[in-house]
Amino acid sequence: MINKLVSKIQKTNAPVVVGLDPMLSYVPEHITKAAFAEYGETLEGAAEAIWQFNKGIVDNIYDLVPAVKPQIAMYEQFGIPGIIAFKKTVDYCKEKDLVVIADIKRGDIGSTSTAYAVGHLGKVQVGSKSYAGFDEDFATVNPYLGSDGIKPFIDVCKENKKGIFVLVKTSNPSSGEFQDRLIDGKPLYEIVGEQVAKWGEEHMGDSYSYVGAVVGATYPEMGKVLRKVMPKSFILVPGYGAQGGTAEGLRPYFNEDGLGAIVNSSRGIIAAYKQEKYAQFGPENYADASRQATIDMIEDIASIF
Amino acid sequence: MINKLVSKIQKTNAPVVVGLDPMLSYVPEHITKAAFAEYGETLEGAAEAIWQFNKGIVDNIYDLVPAVKPQIAMYEQFGIPGIIAFKKTVDYCKEKDLVVIADIKRGDIGSTSTAYAVGHLGKVQVGSKSYAGFDEDFATVNPYLGSDGIKPFIDVCKENKKGIFVLVKTSNPSSGEFQDRLIDGKPLYEIVGEQVAKWGEEHMGDSYSYVGAVVGATYPEMGKVLRKVMPKSFILVPGYGAQGGTAEGLRPYFNEDGLGAIVNSSRGIIAAYKQEKYAQFGPENYADASRQATIDMIEDIASIF
Repeated sequence: MINKLVSKIQKTNAPVVVGLDPMLSYVPEHITKAAFAEYGETLEGAAEAIWQFNKGIVDNIYDLVPAVKPQIAMYEQFGIPGIIAFKKTVDYCKEKDLVVIADIKRGDIGSTSTAYAVGHLGKVQVGSKSYAGFDEDFATVNPYLGSDGIKPFIDVCKENKKGIFVLVKTSNPSSGEFQDRLIDGKPLYEIVGEQVAKWGEEHMGDSYSYVGAVVGATYPEMGKVLRKVMPKSFILVPGYGAQGGTAEGLRPYFNEDGLGAIVNSSRGIIAAYKQEKYAQFGPENYADASRQATIDMIEDIASIF
Repeated sequence: MINKLVSKIQKTNAPVVVGLDPMLSYVPEHITKAAFAEYGETLEGAAEAIWQFNKGIVDNIYDLVPAVKPQIAMYEQFGIPGIIAFKKTVDYCKEKDLVVIADIKRGDIGSTSTAYAVGHLGKVQVGSKSYAGFDEDFATVNPYLGSDGIKPFIDVCKENKKGIFVLVKTSNPSSGEFQDRLIDGKPLYEIVGEQVAKWGEEHMGDSYSYVGAVVGATYPEMGKVLRKVMPKSFILVPGYGAQGGTAEGLRPYFNEDGLGAIVNSSRGIIAAYKQEKYAQFGPENYADASRQATIDMIEDIASIF
C-alpha cells in the first residue's frame, strides 16, 4: 500500500491528502435539511448529513489527490450511526481508488493492539471465516506505550500490505509539553522518531517503509531533523493551512527525491466555501469550492520544488 | 461520577473493576454455537457471542464490584456489529448500576478531542436536539499530545460529571521505552503524573478528582512514587493477575484512607473457567467461575489492608 501511495503521488503530482473531518457546522443547509427531513434531528440524521457532505467532496476531488484521511472522532461523536457513516466513507473512497489513511490514533498493548490492527487493517477470524471490519489502508497510531503497542500493528500490516503512521511530533501548540522534553540532550520526539526508523526496517516497501510518522507542519525545524532521523519513513504532515503551517515551511519534510511526505488539509478544503476566498461558490456548490481549494493547495505545494 | 465510584467501592468493599475484554476464544462453545446458528459465522454472529458472554458474566458479578471496564478494541475488531455489542454491554452494565470505565485510550487535539469526549462522555448537538452516542462514565485517555488533548475531555467531563483516567505508566514490558526516560532527572511518567495532578485540580469531586491515572500493577515502586505525586487522583491499576501483578504489590497504590485505587482484572475473571483452579465449573458454568474468581480477587486485595 505504501508503493501504491507513492505511485499515486507521482501520478497526481500531489503530495496531498484531504482530511475528511466533517463537523455538522460545515455541512451546508440544503444537505442537513434533506437528511433531517428523512431521519429527523437524530444521530441517524446527522450521520446521513455528514455522509452526503463527504460524498459530494469525494466526487469532486478523487481525481486530484492520492489519498484521504477521515478522522474517526468526527464520526464517533455521533455514536453507532456515526461509525456507520465512517465505514461508508471509507468504502466509497476505496471505490474511487483513493488511499484511505484512517486517523484513529489508536494504541494499546499486546492482544489489544492486535485487535485494533485486525479491525482496521486486517481480518478477524470468526469460526472458519474471516472478515475485515473497517479495512482502511493506513492508520495513525500513538507510541506512548512503546514497542508492545506498535509491533502488533506491524505484524498485521505485514500480512495485509497495510501501513501505519506513528505520532512523533503533533501539530498542536502544547505538543511540546511532553514531546519536546530533553532526554540525554535529545527531545522525546526525536527518540520516538529513531524508533519509527527502526520499526520501519521491519516492513519495507520498494523505496519507503510501511511505517510512517506524523510530524506537524507547524514545526518545520523539527521536521528537518526528523526527515534525517527517519529517511525511509513517509511523513504525514497535518497543520497546513488552518493551523498555520505554510508551503515554504514544508520543504524540509521532503527528501531529495521530492517524495517522503504527504501534507494534510482538512478544514481548509472541506469547508473552503466558508472562506472569503471561495465564498463566490456559495453553500450549494460547496464541493466545487473544495475542488478549487484542492487545486490551489497542490499548486502552493508544487511551488516549493 | 467519581463520588459514585468512591461510594460504590466503600459499599462493596471491593476496589476492583472487571475488565470486559472478550476474545472469541474465551467464549464457551454453547454460546458461540447458538450465536452462529442464528447469525452464521459472521461479524454479527461474533458480536452476538461476545454480548451473550458478557451478559452472563455481568449477571453474576454486578452485586460484587463497583465497576466494569470494557476494552473497546475487543469490540472494534468486529467492525460495526462489534461496536453495537460494545454499546449494548455499556447500556446493560449501567442498567445494573455498575460504573462503566470505557477503556478507549483515545486522545487527539482541540475539536477532535472534543468530538471523542462528546461521543463517549457527553452529548452531541444535532440541530435543536442533543444525544449521548455511547454515554460511558469514565474513559481512558492518552497524554502524548499534551494539554490540548486532555483539556477538551475535562471540559466535557465538567458539564456531565464524568471522568477520565490518563495513561501515566502502563503495565506492559516495553512501557519504559518512552515512559521511563529521564528528563531533568525525572522519568517521563512522573512528569505526566504531575500534569495529571494539575489537570485534576480543575475538576474535583468530594474527596478525589474526576481526573485519574492509569498505573500498571507490574511496577509497584513506580506506583508508590506516583501515589504521592497525584494524591487526589484515583489510580486505575491494570496488570493484576494474568500480567503478573500481585496483591502485596498493590498497597502503595492506595492512600492512607484505603481509597485512591481500583484494580482491574480482565482475563483472570472473564476466562476464569479456563484456569485449572476453576476448571470444575466447566464451560457451561463459566459465569459462576467468573463470580468465584471475583470473590477470590476481592479477598486477595482485602488481605493487604
